[in-house]
Amino acid sequence: MRHIQIVGIGTGNPEHMTVQAINTLNAADVIFIPSKGAAKAELADVRKDICERYVTNKTIRFIGYEVPSRRTADRSYVQGVDEWHEEISAIYERLFLEHLAEKERAAFLVWGDPGLYDSTLRIIERVAARGNVPLDYGIIPGITSIQALTASHRIPLNLVGKPVQITTGRRLAESFPGIAETAVVMLDGQQAFSKIDDPDAYIYWGAYLGTKDEIIISGRLADVSERIVSTREEARARHGWIMDIYLLRKGQDFDDRT
Amino acid sequence: MRHIQIVGIGTGNPEHMTVQAINTLNAADVIFIPSKGAAKAELADVRKDICERYVTNKTIRFIGYEVPSRRTADRSYVQGVDEWHEEISAIYERLFLEHLAEKERAAFLVWGDPGLYDSTLRIIERVAARGNVPLDYGIIPGITSIQALTASHRIPLNLVGKPVQITTGRRLAESFPGIAETAVVMLDGQQAFSKIDDPDAYIYWGAYLGTKDEIIISGRLADVSERIVSTREEARARHGWIMDIYLLRKGQDFDDRT
Repeated sequence: MRHIQIVGIGTGNPEHMTVQAINTLNAADVIFIPSKGAAKAELADVRKDICERYVTNKTIRFIGYEVPSRRTADRSYVQGVDEWHEEISAIYERLFLEHLAEKERAAFLVWGDPGLYDSTLRIIERVAARGNVPLDYGIIPGITSIQALTASHRIPLNLVGKPVQITTGRRLAESFPGIAETAVVMLDGQQAFSKIDDPDAYIYWGAYLGTKDEIIISGRLADVSERIVSTREEARARHGWIMDIYLLRKGQDFDDRT
Repeated sequence: MRHIQIVGIGTGNPEHMTVQAINTLNAADVIFIPSKGAAKAELADVRKDICERYVTNKTIRFIGYEVPSRRTADRSYVQGVDEWHEEISAIYERLFLEHLAEKERAAFLVWGDPGLYDSTLRIIERVAARGNVPLDYGIIPGITSIQALTASHRIPLNLVGKPVQITTGRRLAESFPGIAETAVVMLDGQQAFSKIDDPDAYIYWGAYLGTKDEIIISGRLADVSERIVSTREEARARHGWIMDIYLLRKGQDFDDRT
Protein backbone atom coordinates (compact mmCIF):
# COMPACT_ATOMS: atom_id res chain seq x y z
CA MET A 1 0.00 0.00 0.00
CA ARG A 2 1.34 3.41 -1.04
CA HIS A 3 0.04 6.58 0.65
CA ILE A 4 -0.82 9.67 -1.34
CA GLN A 5 -1.69 13.04 0.20
CA ILE A 6 -3.32 15.75 -1.91
CA VAL A 7 -2.27 18.98 -0.22
CA GLY A 8 -4.01 22.33 -0.73
CA ILE A 9 -1.41 25.11 -0.74
CA GLY A 10 -3.54 28.27 -1.09
CA THR A 11 -3.62 30.74 -3.94
CA GLY A 12 -0.08 32.01 -4.31
CA ASN A 13 0.72 33.59 -0.96
CA PRO A 14 3.14 31.13 0.70
CA GLU A 15 1.67 32.21 4.07
CA HIS A 16 -1.65 30.61 3.08
CA MET A 17 -0.01 27.29 3.95
CA THR A 18 -1.60 25.61 6.96
CA VAL A 19 0.36 23.90 9.70
CA GLN A 20 -1.29 20.64 8.60
CA ALA A 21 -0.08 21.12 5.02
CA ILE A 22 3.47 21.88 6.17
CA ASN A 23 3.54 18.83 8.44
CA THR A 24 2.12 16.61 5.71
CA LEU A 25 4.76 17.71 3.21
CA ASN A 26 7.53 17.06 5.71
CA ALA A 27 6.19 13.58 6.44
CA ALA A 28 6.40 12.61 2.75
CA ASP A 29 9.06 10.47 1.12
CA VAL A 30 8.36 11.96 -2.30
CA ILE A 31 6.83 15.23 -3.51
CA PHE A 32 5.59 15.16 -7.09
CA ILE A 33 5.94 18.43 -8.98
CA PRO A 34 4.35 19.09 -12.39
CA SER A 35 6.28 20.82 -15.15
CA LYS A 36 3.82 23.39 -16.44
CA GLY A 37 5.81 25.10 -19.20
CA ALA A 38 7.41 28.53 -19.23
CA ALA A 39 4.15 30.53 -19.40
CA LYS A 40 3.38 29.73 -15.80
CA ALA A 41 6.94 30.07 -14.55
CA GLU A 42 5.72 32.50 -11.89
CA LEU A 43 3.37 29.86 -10.49
CA ALA A 44 6.15 27.29 -10.50
CA ASP A 45 8.24 29.80 -8.54
CA VAL A 46 5.56 30.05 -5.84
CA ARG A 47 5.51 26.29 -5.52
CA LYS A 48 9.31 26.24 -5.31
CA ASP A 49 9.24 29.02 -2.72
CA ILE A 50 6.75 27.03 -0.62
CA CYS A 51 8.97 23.95 -0.69
CA GLU A 52 12.12 25.93 0.12
CA ARG A 53 10.47 27.75 3.01
CA TYR A 54 8.61 24.91 4.64
CA VAL A 55 10.10 21.56 3.62
CA THR A 56 12.79 21.10 6.24
CA ASN A 57 13.06 17.32 5.82
CA LYS A 58 16.08 17.02 3.54
CA THR A 59 15.53 13.34 2.71
CA ILE A 60 12.44 14.07 0.60
CA ARG A 61 12.82 13.30 -3.10
CA PHE A 62 11.31 15.82 -5.55
CA ILE A 63 10.11 14.15 -8.74
CA GLY A 64 8.95 16.17 -11.74
CA TYR A 65 6.44 15.01 -14.35
CA GLU A 66 4.91 16.36 -17.55
CA VAL A 67 1.23 17.27 -17.68
CA PRO A 68 -0.35 16.75 -21.12
CA SER A 69 -2.65 19.40 -22.59
CA ARG A 70 -6.39 18.78 -22.70
CA ARG A 71 -7.69 18.23 -26.23
CA THR A 72 -10.85 20.13 -27.05
CA ALA A 73 -11.44 19.55 -30.81
CA ASP A 74 -14.31 17.28 -31.95
CA ARG A 75 -15.44 16.34 -28.43
CA SER A 76 -17.72 17.74 -25.77
CA TYR A 77 -16.29 19.49 -22.72
CA VAL A 78 -16.88 16.51 -20.44
CA GLN A 79 -15.50 14.02 -22.98
CA GLY A 80 -12.35 16.12 -23.26
CA VAL A 81 -11.95 16.24 -19.48
CA ASP A 82 -12.67 12.51 -19.15
CA GLU A 83 -9.95 11.59 -21.67
CA TRP A 84 -7.53 14.03 -20.09
CA HIS A 85 -8.04 12.55 -16.62
CA GLU A 86 -7.52 9.05 -18.03
CA GLU A 87 -4.27 10.13 -19.67
CA ILE A 88 -2.96 11.80 -16.50
CA SER A 89 -3.97 8.82 -14.37
CA ALA A 90 -1.72 6.59 -16.51
CA ILE A 91 1.12 9.05 -15.90
CA TYR A 92 0.47 8.97 -12.14
CA GLU A 93 0.40 5.18 -12.15
CA ARG A 94 3.84 5.07 -13.76
CA LEU A 95 5.12 7.69 -11.32
CA PHE A 96 3.97 5.62 -8.37
CA LEU A 97 5.44 2.39 -9.74
CA GLU A 98 8.77 3.93 -10.67
CA HIS A 99 9.37 6.43 -7.87
CA LEU A 100 7.43 5.29 -4.83
CA ALA A 101 8.26 2.10 -2.95
CA GLU A 102 5.53 0.17 -1.16
CA LYS A 103 4.48 1.81 2.12
CA GLU A 104 6.11 5.08 1.09
CA ARG A 105 4.27 8.38 1.29
CA ALA A 106 3.92 10.90 -1.52
CA ALA A 107 2.37 14.36 -1.71
CA PHE A 108 0.91 16.44 -4.52
CA LEU A 109 0.68 20.23 -4.12
CA VAL A 110 -2.63 21.63 -5.35
CA TRP A 111 -3.49 25.33 -5.79
CA GLY A 112 -6.30 26.46 -3.52
CA ASP A 113 -8.22 23.54 -2.05
CA PRO A 114 -8.22 20.02 -3.55
CA GLY A 115 -12.03 19.96 -3.50
CA LEU A 116 -12.70 23.06 -5.59
CA TYR A 117 -12.39 22.85 -9.38
CA ASP A 118 -9.35 20.62 -9.18
CA SER A 119 -9.21 17.03 -10.37
CA THR A 120 -6.14 15.57 -8.68
CA LEU A 121 -8.48 13.63 -6.37
CA ARG A 122 -10.49 12.22 -9.29
CA ILE A 123 -7.30 11.17 -11.06
CA ILE A 124 -5.92 9.43 -7.95
CA GLU A 125 -9.27 7.65 -7.60
CA ARG A 126 -8.85 6.33 -11.17
CA VAL A 127 -5.41 4.99 -10.34
CA ALA A 128 -6.79 3.33 -7.20
CA ALA A 129 -9.77 1.87 -9.09
CA ARG A 130 -7.54 0.35 -11.77
CA GLY A 131 -5.89 -1.69 -9.03
CA ASN A 132 -2.39 -2.00 -10.50
CA VAL A 133 -0.92 0.05 -7.65
CA PRO A 134 -2.61 -0.52 -4.29
CA LEU A 135 -2.85 2.87 -2.58
CA ASP A 136 -4.73 4.96 -0.11
CA TYR A 137 -5.06 8.71 -0.18
CA GLY A 138 -6.07 11.72 1.87
CA ILE A 139 -6.88 15.38 1.39
CA ILE A 140 -5.42 18.36 3.24
CA PRO A 141 -7.69 21.41 2.90
CA GLY A 142 -6.25 24.69 1.60
CA ILE A 143 -7.26 28.34 1.30
CA THR A 144 -9.28 28.81 -1.89
CA SER A 145 -9.25 31.75 -4.28
CA ILE A 146 -12.82 32.45 -3.08
CA GLN A 147 -11.52 33.18 0.42
CA ALA A 148 -8.56 35.14 -0.95
CA LEU A 149 -10.98 37.22 -3.06
CA THR A 150 -13.36 38.11 -0.24
CA ALA A 151 -10.45 38.80 2.15
CA SER A 152 -8.74 41.17 -0.30
CA HIS A 153 -12.01 43.02 -0.97
CA ARG A 154 -12.90 42.87 2.75
CA ILE A 155 -16.42 41.62 1.99
CA PRO A 156 -18.46 38.71 3.33
CA LEU A 157 -19.05 35.90 0.83
CA ASN A 158 -22.77 35.71 1.61
CA LEU A 159 -25.44 38.23 2.52
CA VAL A 160 -26.91 37.57 5.99
CA GLY A 161 -28.71 34.21 5.88
CA LYS A 162 -28.61 34.15 2.06
CA PRO A 163 -27.24 31.53 -0.37
CA VAL A 164 -24.20 31.73 -2.63
CA GLN A 165 -23.79 30.10 -6.01
CA ILE A 166 -20.30 29.02 -7.07
CA THR A 167 -20.24 28.58 -10.82
CA THR A 168 -18.22 28.82 -14.02
CA GLY A 169 -18.19 31.40 -16.80
CA ARG A 170 -19.95 28.93 -19.08
CA ARG A 171 -22.85 28.64 -16.66
CA LEU A 172 -23.09 32.14 -15.27
CA ALA A 173 -26.10 33.18 -17.35
CA GLU A 174 -28.26 30.49 -15.73
CA SER A 175 -27.01 31.32 -12.21
CA PHE A 176 -27.15 35.10 -11.97
CA PRO A 177 -29.31 36.87 -11.30
CA GLY A 178 -31.10 33.88 -9.86
CA ILE A 179 -32.18 32.69 -6.46
CA ALA A 180 -28.72 33.44 -5.09
CA GLU A 181 -28.02 37.15 -4.72
CA THR A 182 -24.34 36.21 -4.78
CA ALA A 183 -22.52 34.32 -7.53
CA VAL A 184 -18.82 33.49 -7.45
CA VAL A 185 -17.43 32.76 -10.88
CA MET A 186 -14.33 30.69 -11.54
CA LEU A 187 -12.78 29.39 -14.76
CA ASP A 188 -14.11 32.23 -16.87
CA GLY A 189 -11.97 32.79 -19.95
CA GLN A 190 -14.81 34.57 -21.76
CA GLN A 191 -15.55 37.42 -19.32
CA ALA A 192 -19.14 36.29 -18.98
CA PHE A 193 -19.76 39.16 -16.56
CA SER A 194 -19.49 41.63 -19.44
CA LYS A 195 -22.67 40.16 -20.98
CA ILE A 196 -24.76 40.74 -17.85
CA ASP A 197 -26.97 43.78 -18.14
CA ASP A 198 -28.22 44.51 -14.65
CA PRO A 199 -28.05 48.04 -13.23
CA ASP A 200 -28.15 46.72 -9.64
CA ALA A 201 -25.29 44.24 -9.91
CA TYR A 202 -21.95 44.81 -8.20
CA ILE A 203 -18.73 43.01 -9.08
CA TYR A 204 -15.66 42.23 -6.97
CA TRP A 205 -12.91 40.98 -9.27
CA GLY A 206 -9.40 39.74 -8.51
CA ALA A 207 -6.45 38.28 -10.41
CA TYR A 208 -3.18 36.68 -9.23
CA LEU A 209 -4.72 36.73 -5.74
CA GLY A 210 -2.28 36.31 -2.90
CA THR A 211 0.76 37.01 -5.09
CA LYS A 212 2.81 40.20 -5.36
CA ASP A 213 1.02 40.83 -8.68
CA GLU A 214 -2.49 40.79 -7.17
CA ILE A 215 -4.96 43.15 -8.86
CA ILE A 216 -8.44 43.84 -7.50
CA ILE A 217 -11.23 45.99 -8.93
CA SER A 218 -14.73 46.48 -7.54
CA GLY A 219 -17.76 48.61 -8.23
CA ARG A 220 -21.11 48.70 -9.92
CA LEU A 221 -20.84 46.19 -12.77
CA ALA A 222 -22.06 48.67 -15.39
CA ASP A 223 -19.40 51.16 -14.26
CA VAL A 224 -16.33 48.92 -14.01
CA SER A 225 -16.99 46.09 -16.48
CA GLU A 226 -14.96 47.64 -19.31
CA ARG A 227 -12.11 48.52 -17.01
CA ILE A 228 -11.92 44.92 -15.78
CA VAL A 229 -11.92 43.58 -19.35
CA SER A 230 -9.07 45.88 -20.40
CA THR A 231 -7.07 45.40 -17.18
CA ARG A 232 -7.45 41.64 -17.52
CA GLU A 233 -6.32 41.65 -21.15
CA GLU A 234 -3.30 43.83 -20.44
CA ALA A 235 -2.24 41.71 -17.44
CA ARG A 236 -2.69 38.44 -19.32
CA ALA A 237 -0.51 39.73 -22.17
CA ARG A 238 2.17 40.91 -19.75
CA HIS A 239 2.31 37.70 -17.65
CA GLY A 240 1.56 35.25 -20.43
CA TRP A 241 -1.23 33.75 -18.27
CA ILE A 242 -3.93 34.82 -15.84
CA MET A 243 -5.89 33.26 -13.00
CA ASP A 244 -8.84 35.37 -11.98
CA ILE A 245 -12.13 35.06 -10.13
CA TYR A 246 -15.00 37.36 -9.31
CA LEU A 247 -18.07 37.74 -7.17
CA LEU A 248 -21.32 39.26 -8.46
CA ARG A 249 -23.89 40.54 -6.00
CA LYS A 250 -27.36 42.01 -6.06
CA GLY A 251 -29.14 43.30 -3.01
CA GLN A 252 -27.77 43.91 0.45
CA ASP A 253 -27.81 42.74 4.04
CA PHE A 254 -31.02 43.26 5.98
CA ASP A 255 -33.07 43.67 2.84
CA ASP A 256 -36.19 41.94 4.09
CA ARG A 257 -38.07 41.62 0.82
CA THR A 258 -36.92 38.04 0.16
CA MET B 1 -6.08 54.94 13.98
CA ARG B 2 -6.45 51.49 15.56
CA HIS B 3 -5.84 48.35 13.49
CA ILE B 4 -8.14 45.35 13.71
CA GLN B 5 -7.44 41.97 12.07
CA ILE B 6 -10.22 39.41 11.69
CA VAL B 7 -8.41 36.09 11.62
CA GLY B 8 -9.90 32.85 10.29
CA ILE B 9 -8.72 29.92 12.46
CA GLY B 10 -10.27 26.90 10.73
CA THR B 11 -12.87 24.52 12.06
CA GLY B 12 -11.43 23.07 15.25
CA ASN B 13 -8.23 21.36 14.17
CA PRO B 14 -5.43 23.65 15.45
CA GLU B 15 -3.36 22.56 12.42
CA HIS B 16 -5.84 24.35 10.14
CA MET B 17 -4.09 27.56 11.19
CA THR B 18 -2.24 29.23 8.32
CA VAL B 19 1.20 30.78 8.63
CA GLN B 20 -0.44 34.13 7.87
CA ALA B 21 -2.91 33.69 10.74
CA ILE B 22 -0.13 32.73 13.17
CA ASN B 23 2.01 35.71 12.14
CA THR B 24 -0.96 38.07 12.39
CA LEU B 25 -1.79 36.93 15.92
CA ASN B 26 1.80 37.36 17.01
CA ALA B 27 1.92 40.88 15.58
CA ALA B 28 -1.08 41.95 17.69
CA ASP B 29 -1.00 44.01 20.85
CA VAL B 30 -4.36 42.65 22.00
CA ILE B 31 -6.34 39.49 21.22
CA PHE B 32 -10.05 39.74 22.01
CA ILE B 33 -11.65 36.49 23.20
CA PRO B 34 -15.42 36.02 23.57
CA SER B 35 -16.90 34.28 26.61
CA LYS B 36 -19.39 31.87 25.07
CA GLY B 37 -20.82 30.13 28.13
CA ALA B 38 -20.20 26.63 29.43
CA ALA B 39 -22.10 24.79 26.67
CA LYS B 40 -19.38 25.54 24.19
CA ALA B 41 -16.50 24.98 26.58
CA GLU B 42 -14.95 22.55 24.11
CA LEU B 43 -14.85 25.26 21.45
CA ALA B 44 -13.30 27.68 23.91
CA ASP B 45 -10.67 25.02 24.62
CA VAL B 46 -9.74 24.82 20.93
CA ARG B 47 -9.32 28.58 20.82
CA LYS B 48 -7.18 28.44 23.97
CA ASP B 49 -5.14 25.58 22.49
CA ILE B 50 -4.52 27.63 19.34
CA CYS B 51 -3.29 30.61 21.36
CA GLU B 52 -1.07 28.46 23.59
CA ARG B 53 0.47 26.63 20.64
CA TYR B 54 1.05 29.50 18.28
CA VAL B 55 1.10 32.80 20.16
CA THR B 56 4.77 33.08 21.14
CA ASN B 57 4.73 36.85 21.68
CA LYS B 58 4.37 37.08 25.46
CA THR B 59 3.56 40.80 25.49
CA ILE B 60 0.11 40.27 23.92
CA ARG B 61 -2.83 41.12 26.18
CA PHE B 62 -5.82 38.76 26.08
CA ILE B 63 -9.09 40.58 26.75
CA GLY B 64 -12.35 38.69 27.26
CA TYR B 65 -15.80 40.05 26.49
CA GLU B 66 -19.40 38.90 26.79
CA VAL B 67 -21.44 38.14 23.68
CA PRO B 68 -25.19 38.82 24.12
CA SER B 69 -27.77 36.34 22.84
CA ARG B 70 -29.73 37.13 19.72
CA ARG B 71 -33.40 37.85 20.44
CA THR B 72 -35.84 36.11 18.11
CA ALA B 73 -39.32 36.83 19.55
CA ASP B 74 -41.66 39.27 17.74
CA ARG B 75 -39.22 40.15 14.99
CA SER B 76 -38.15 38.79 11.62
CA TYR B 77 -34.89 36.87 11.24
CA VAL B 78 -33.10 39.82 9.62
CA GLN B 79 -34.45 42.32 12.17
CA GLY B 80 -33.16 40.10 14.97
CA VAL B 81 -29.73 39.83 13.35
CA ASP B 82 -29.62 43.57 12.66
CA GLU B 83 -30.35 44.43 16.31
CA TRP B 84 -27.87 41.85 17.52
CA HIS B 85 -25.08 43.26 15.33
CA GLU B 86 -25.85 46.76 16.59
CA GLU B 87 -25.65 45.56 20.19
CA ILE B 88 -22.33 43.76 19.64
CA SER B 89 -20.87 46.71 17.75
CA ALA B 90 -21.44 48.89 20.84
CA ILE B 91 -19.58 46.28 22.90
CA TYR B 92 -16.70 46.28 20.39
CA GLU B 93 -16.55 50.08 20.45
CA ARG B 94 -16.17 50.08 24.21
CA LEU B 95 -13.54 47.33 24.00
CA PHE B 96 -11.49 49.37 21.55
CA LEU B 97 -11.76 52.56 23.59
CA GLU B 98 -10.91 50.88 26.89
CA HIS B 99 -8.32 48.29 25.89
CA LEU B 100 -6.66 49.43 22.68
CA ALA B 101 -4.47 52.53 22.50
CA GLU B 102 -4.25 54.54 19.31
CA LYS B 103 -2.07 52.86 16.66
CA GLU B 104 -2.26 49.53 18.50
CA ARG B 105 -3.22 46.31 16.72
CA ALA B 106 -5.92 43.89 17.81
CA ALA B 107 -7.05 40.52 16.49
CA PHE B 108 -10.32 38.59 16.63
CA LEU B 109 -10.28 34.80 16.13
CA VAL B 110 -13.11 33.60 13.90
CA TRP B 111 -14.11 29.96 13.28
CA GLY B 112 -13.66 28.90 9.68
CA ASP B 113 -13.25 31.87 7.34
CA PRO B 114 -14.36 35.42 8.23
CA GLY B 115 -16.29 35.67 4.93
CA LEU B 116 -18.57 32.65 5.35
CA TYR B 117 -21.64 32.96 7.58
CA ASP B 118 -19.79 35.04 10.13
CA SER B 119 -20.55 38.65 10.97
CA THR B 120 -17.46 39.91 12.76
CA LEU B 121 -16.59 41.91 9.63
CA ARG B 122 -20.05 43.49 9.45
CA ILE B 123 -19.87 44.45 13.12
CA ILE B 124 -16.41 46.01 12.76
CA GLU B 125 -17.75 47.95 9.74
CA ARG B 126 -20.51 49.33 11.97
CA VAL B 127 -17.97 50.49 14.54
CA ALA B 128 -15.91 52.13 11.78
CA ALA B 129 -18.98 53.79 10.24
CA ARG B 130 -20.07 55.25 13.57
CA GLY B 131 -16.77 57.16 13.62
CA ASN B 132 -16.22 57.33 17.39
CA VAL B 133 -13.11 55.13 17.14
CA PRO B 134 -11.07 55.69 13.97
CA LEU B 135 -9.90 52.26 12.80
CA ASP B 136 -8.87 50.21 9.84
CA TYR B 137 -9.28 46.47 9.49
CA GLY B 138 -8.19 43.46 7.48
CA ILE B 139 -9.22 39.85 6.95
CA ILE B 140 -7.04 36.76 7.16
CA PRO B 141 -8.65 33.83 5.31
CA GLY B 142 -9.17 30.51 7.12
CA ILE B 143 -10.13 26.93 6.31
CA THR B 144 -13.93 26.64 6.22
CA SER B 145 -16.11 23.77 7.39
CA ILE B 146 -16.93 23.22 3.69
CA GLN B 147 -13.32 22.33 2.97
CA ALA B 148 -13.07 20.26 6.16
CA LEU B 149 -16.21 18.36 5.13
CA THR B 150 -15.07 17.51 1.60
CA ALA B 151 -11.57 16.62 2.84
CA SER B 152 -12.90 14.23 5.49
CA HIS B 153 -15.24 12.56 3.00
CA ARG B 154 -12.54 12.65 0.31
CA ILE B 155 -14.91 14.10 -2.26
CA PRO B 156 -14.67 17.06 -4.62
CA LEU B 157 -16.97 19.98 -3.76
CA ASN B 158 -18.21 20.33 -7.35
CA LEU B 159 -18.93 17.92 -10.17
CA VAL B 160 -16.68 18.54 -13.20
CA GLY B 161 -17.54 22.00 -14.59
CA LYS B 162 -20.76 22.17 -12.54
CA PRO B 163 -22.00 24.76 -10.04
CA VAL B 164 -22.37 24.48 -6.26
CA GLN B 165 -24.98 26.18 -4.12
CA ILE B 166 -24.04 27.13 -0.55
CA THR B 167 -27.19 27.66 1.44
CA THR B 168 -28.91 27.41 4.81
CA GLY B 169 -31.40 24.91 6.19
CA ARG B 170 -34.13 27.53 5.94
CA ARG B 171 -33.55 27.90 2.20
CA LEU B 172 -32.65 24.36 1.19
CA ALA B 173 -36.02 23.53 -0.35
CA GLU B 174 -35.61 26.27 -2.97
CA SER B 175 -32.00 25.28 -3.72
CA PHE B 176 -32.06 21.51 -4.06
CA PRO B 177 -32.66 19.81 -6.32
CA GLY B 178 -32.24 22.85 -8.52
CA ILE B 179 -29.82 23.98 -11.16
CA ALA B 180 -26.89 23.06 -8.92
CA GLU B 181 -26.39 19.31 -8.61
CA THR B 182 -24.50 20.08 -5.39
CA ALA B 183 -25.83 21.96 -2.38
CA VAL B 184 -23.82 22.61 0.78
CA VAL B 185 -26.02 23.35 3.76
CA MET B 186 -24.88 25.27 6.82
CA LEU B 187 -26.77 26.61 9.84
CA ASP B 188 -29.41 23.88 9.70
CA GLY B 189 -30.96 23.32 13.10
CA GLN B 190 -34.05 21.73 11.56
CA GLN B 191 -32.49 18.85 9.60
CA ALA B 192 -34.00 20.14 6.38
CA PHE B 193 -32.38 17.23 4.51
CA SER B 194 -34.85 14.84 6.15
CA LYS B 195 -37.70 16.52 4.27
CA ILE B 196 -36.14 15.94 0.85
CA ASP B 197 -37.67 13.02 -0.98
CA ASP B 198 -35.36 12.25 -3.88
CA PRO B 199 -34.22 8.69 -4.56
CA ASP B 200 -31.15 9.90 -6.46
CA ALA B 201 -29.79 12.25 -3.81
CA TYR B 202 -26.64 11.48 -1.84
CA ILE B 203 -25.64 13.14 1.42
CA TYR B 204 -22.21 13.71 2.99
CA TRP B 205 -22.71 14.88 6.57
CA GLY B 206 -20.19 15.93 9.21
CA ALA B 207 -20.23 17.30 12.76
CA TYR B 208 -17.45 18.69 14.99
CA LEU B 209 -15.27 18.64 11.88
CA GLY B 210 -11.56 18.86 12.50
CA THR B 211 -11.89 18.08 16.23
CA LYS B 212 -11.24 14.81 18.03
CA ASP B 213 -15.03 14.34 18.20
CA GLU B 214 -15.54 14.51 14.42
CA ILE B 215 -18.38 12.32 13.10
CA ILE B 216 -19.03 11.77 9.40
CA ILE B 217 -21.80 9.79 7.68
CA SER B 218 -22.43 9.44 3.96
CA GLY B 219 -24.68 7.46 1.65
CA ARG B 220 -27.87 7.59 -0.34
CA LEU B 221 -30.04 10.17 1.44
CA ALA B 222 -33.03 7.83 1.67
CA ASP B 223 -30.82 5.17 3.30
CA VAL B 224 -28.91 7.27 5.86
CA SER B 225 -31.23 10.19 6.65
CA GLU B 226 -32.69 8.62 9.80
CA ARG B 227 -29.28 7.55 11.04
CA ILE B 228 -27.97 11.09 10.66
CA VAL B 229 -30.97 12.52 12.54
CA SER B 230 -30.51 10.13 15.46
CA THR B 231 -26.68 10.42 15.53
CA ARG B 232 -26.99 14.21 15.48
CA GLU B 233 -29.52 14.23 18.31
CA GLU B 234 -27.46 11.91 20.47
CA ALA B 235 -24.25 13.88 19.89
CA ARG B 236 -25.93 17.21 20.56
CA ALA B 237 -27.30 15.91 23.87
CA ARG B 238 -23.92 14.54 24.89
CA HIS B 239 -21.88 17.66 24.02
CA GLY B 240 -24.55 20.23 24.86
CA TRP B 241 -24.05 21.79 21.40
CA ILE B 242 -23.41 20.79 17.82
CA MET B 243 -21.91 22.36 14.71
CA ASP B 244 -22.66 20.36 11.59
CA ILE B 245 -22.75 20.78 7.84
CA TYR B 246 -23.65 18.60 4.89
CA LEU B 247 -23.40 18.31 1.15
CA LEU B 248 -26.25 16.99 -1.00
CA ARG B 249 -25.54 15.77 -4.50
CA LYS B 250 -27.45 14.48 -7.49
CA GLY B 251 -25.80 13.20 -10.64
CA GLN B 252 -22.18 12.42 -11.25
CA ASP B 253 -19.08 13.49 -13.12
CA PHE B 254 -19.10 13.09 -16.88
CA ASP B 255 -22.86 12.86 -17.01
CA ASP B 256 -23.32 14.73 -20.30
CA ARG B 257 -27.08 15.18 -20.18
CA THR B 258 -26.91 18.69 -18.78
